[in-house]
Amino acid sequence: MSEQLIEKAKKAKEAALTLAMLSTEEKNKALLSMAEGLEANIAPIIEANALDIEAAKNSGVSNALIDRLSLNDTRILDMAAGLRQVVSLPDPVGEVLESWSRPNGLNIEKVRVPLGVIGMIYEARPNVTVDAAGLSIKTGNAVLLGGSSSALHSNQKIVAILRDSLGKTQVPAEAIQLLEEGTREEVNQLLKLNEYLDVLIPRGGAGLIRSVVENSSVPVLETGVGNCHIYVDETANLEMAQQIITNGKTQRPAVCNATETLLVNEEWAKHNLTQLLQPLVEKGVELRGCPKTLEYAPTLPIIPATDEDWGTEFLDYTLAVSIVPSVQEAISHISKYGTKHSESIVTEKQQNADLFLSQVDAAAVYHNASTRFTDGFEFGFGAEIGISTQKLHARGPMGLPALTSYKYKIFGTGQIR
Amino acid sequence: MSEQLIEKAKKAKEAALTLAMLSTEEKNKALLSMAEGLEANIAPIIEANALDIEAAKNSGVSNALIDRLSLNDTRILDMAAGLRQVVSLPDPVGEVLESWSRPNGLNIEKVRVPLGVIGMIYEARPNVTVDAAGLSIKTGNAVLLGGSSSALHSNQKIVAILRDSLGKTQVPAEAIQLLEEGTREEVNQLLKLNEYLDVLIPRGGAGLIRSVVENSSVPVLETGVGNCHIYVDETANLEMAQQIITNGKTQRPAVCNATETLLVNEEWAKHNLTQLLQPLVEKGVELRGCPKTLEYAPTLPIIPATDEDWGTEFLDYTLAVSIVPSVQEAISHISKYGTKHSESIVTEKQQNADLFLSQVDAAAVYHNASTRFTDGFEFGFGAEIGISTQKLHARGPMGLPALTSYKYKIFGTGQIR
Repeated sequence: MSEQLIEKAKKAKEAALTLAMLSTEEKNKALLSMAEGLEANIAPIIEANALDIEAAKNSGVSNALIDRLSLNDTRILDMAAGLRQVVSLPDPVGEVLESWSRPNGLNIEKVRVPLGVIGMIYEARPNVTVDAAGLSIKTGNAVLLGGSSSALHSNQKIVAILRDSLGKTQVPAEAIQLLEEGTREEVNQLLKLNEYLDVLIPRGGAGLIRSVVENSSVPVLETGVGNCHIYVDETANLEMAQQIITNGKTQRPAVCNATETLLVNEEWAKHNLTQLLQPLVEKGVELRGCPKTLEYAPTLPIIPATDEDWGTEFLDYTLAVSIVPSVQEAISHISKYGTKHSESIVTEKQQNADLFLSQVDAAAVYHNASTRFTDGFEFGFGAEIGISTQKLHARGPMGLPALTSYKYKIFGTGQIR
Repeated sequence: MSEQLIEKAKKAKEAALTLAMLSTEEKNKALLSMAEGLEANIAPIIEANALDIEAAKNSGVSNALIDRLSLNDTRILDMAAGLRQVVSLPDPVGEVLESWSRPNGLNIEKVRVPLGVIGMIYEARPNVTVDAAGLSIKTGNAVLLGGSSSALHSNQKIVAILRDSLGKTQVPAEAIQLLEEGTREEVNQLLKLNEYLDVLIPRGGAGLIRSVVENSSVPVLETGVGNCHIYVDETANLEMAQQIITNGKTQRPAVCNATETLLVNEEWAKHNLTQLLQPLVEKGVELRGCPKTLEYAPTLPIIPATDEDWGTEFLDYTLAVSIVPSVQEAISHISKYGTKHSESIVTEKQQNADLFLSQVDAAAVYHNASTRFTDGFEFGFGAEIGISTQKLHARGPMGLPALTSYKYKIFGTGQIR
């Protein structure tokens, strides 16, 4: 274990103790100071970012990755604006969640407290550095940032600016720690820092998340992978179904709440499948269908689906389509291939909607709406740490409370057992 | 990975889908049937248990372990009574935790749901088999029981009876699964069953829990280890302090909420330490003190403490004692050596109590009460799955809601983004 890393983790843990005691006002002042720091240092950030972009280009990575890595004035101002928005959100820390008295006279209060130290593991986007630092500080947590080595210069510059900005506030600069190099080896060490980290949050592709879940002994908030389905039931309104599936698939295909598989009731499909799929074809979506899909929409360009397609998160203009005999079969299909993220039924039959919403095991289950709504902002949370696909602690879109725990305060007058 | 184990896990997962849909009444009927099954089969259980006890005696294990392993009429009837008590508790599943509408007309409900499949890993106590099965079924979860091989005959017989009892109810018998042999190798496979298990709960000694936390890729609810402190402040009432520390240390020393280290304010100690410790000496408690403890209580039999003593969960009639200059130093000591379980301050000064309860990072923080109250029954939860010492999901005593998650049900009328 690298001593430098342990030193950073220790400092984060110490800072967390101070941070946990600060008032909302003091934390908000720090966030505003961080926003001002970014706004006053656009040029040096872009300069540092240029080094990362040059290195990325030299190593021949994809244009998509270079886009995610690239900063400009607007993106930096957006990061600062994000911090200002977090200022405006209510502070969950200190909230008394419950309180009650026991027959022996003990008074018990369940009070919301920060988690302590949050480890973030993420890929090329330098905006996550600011985002994670802002959300952590608002909730009274220190953060150990496991940014990727590909964004090292950008992250180092941003973190230096944020820490400088904290110098004028009550929040200790040590509350924000950045890995020395962000190498895979260093990130792997984070996964074993149980003594210092209270939670690890991986943000990025499926590979990154799987690797963290499989190897971390620190508790993990698993986020992200969404193989989302829409099931069009026997009584679906055609126009509504067209709009919902077109939106779910094409409004932003690269995100986790985009729709990946369409399930269609067979009776309904016999009369409506071609019309349902037509708008998708016009939008350039590649359709991969089961044999019956090809049979019921013979005039459309549909590729035969492989078994692998049912389990694939395409994140692209590609949709798998399967004909199913009933809502029960749709539920079984989702149970087999879904990732417990977002699932939707389009139906006019209340009974089938109820069955689907009860039986489908996912963070968000929809009746007559697009899967694209699974999002902290769309839910009205004002911020989003990520979308949890696990069942412990937090499920679905995670707002600020997901970065908190609670403690019991017990007030006695000498009680013993 | 053993195919038998995967088969059991698959069956549990299927059963969980059925179980999640059952009404409280149907689940309660199953629990009552399980209780009746145990009551009607005392002799065969004791017979099976005798085989485990004989094997344990032949392998020369401690008497304490043999005691934990041993069943008799009373213990079996207690297990059945425990199931009947769970029947009387409210069912958390189905509770609407929150609901709200969005400007676009979407209605969102946050509804409590079962976790799915719970993996329990535990040591020799066969009563945990019944306990875990009962709590899981009440909360709509299937359970995969990782009982120790030392209790295999007892567990097999108990599980067979419980599953038989379910035959007459709506709860599938497959909702209760027991490992084939409970060997370490088989238990280790449980830790990687992410596809089937939603959570793992280790119940047992510190070694077992550490091993599960370090090696599991399934999310873990960490329970148990308690290095609990009582700090006696400068304004403490002597009699109250005597009672609280004597209770914390001696009422049941082998449990996790027993007190392990006493911290005493120096000014107060100068006048009161001998009197404070006298009742402990009379109860046969071995005291291990810092140099100042020996100085301020020169007439008492106190062994010099080693550094290791401050971090030790003695679980016995042994108490470490340290003199500290202030409440702040007491908090620092606890921050360094505590396990975030239960910590108490005895003081008449409200300001110091507030400081201690705010700054000490533990599941339960007490003012003028014994640490022994950290317990699901003492908190009024009616049941206890364990005491969480982690901060994710559940902290402190865990009642039935700790075995649940939630999902969002979203009701639309064709909304798209």
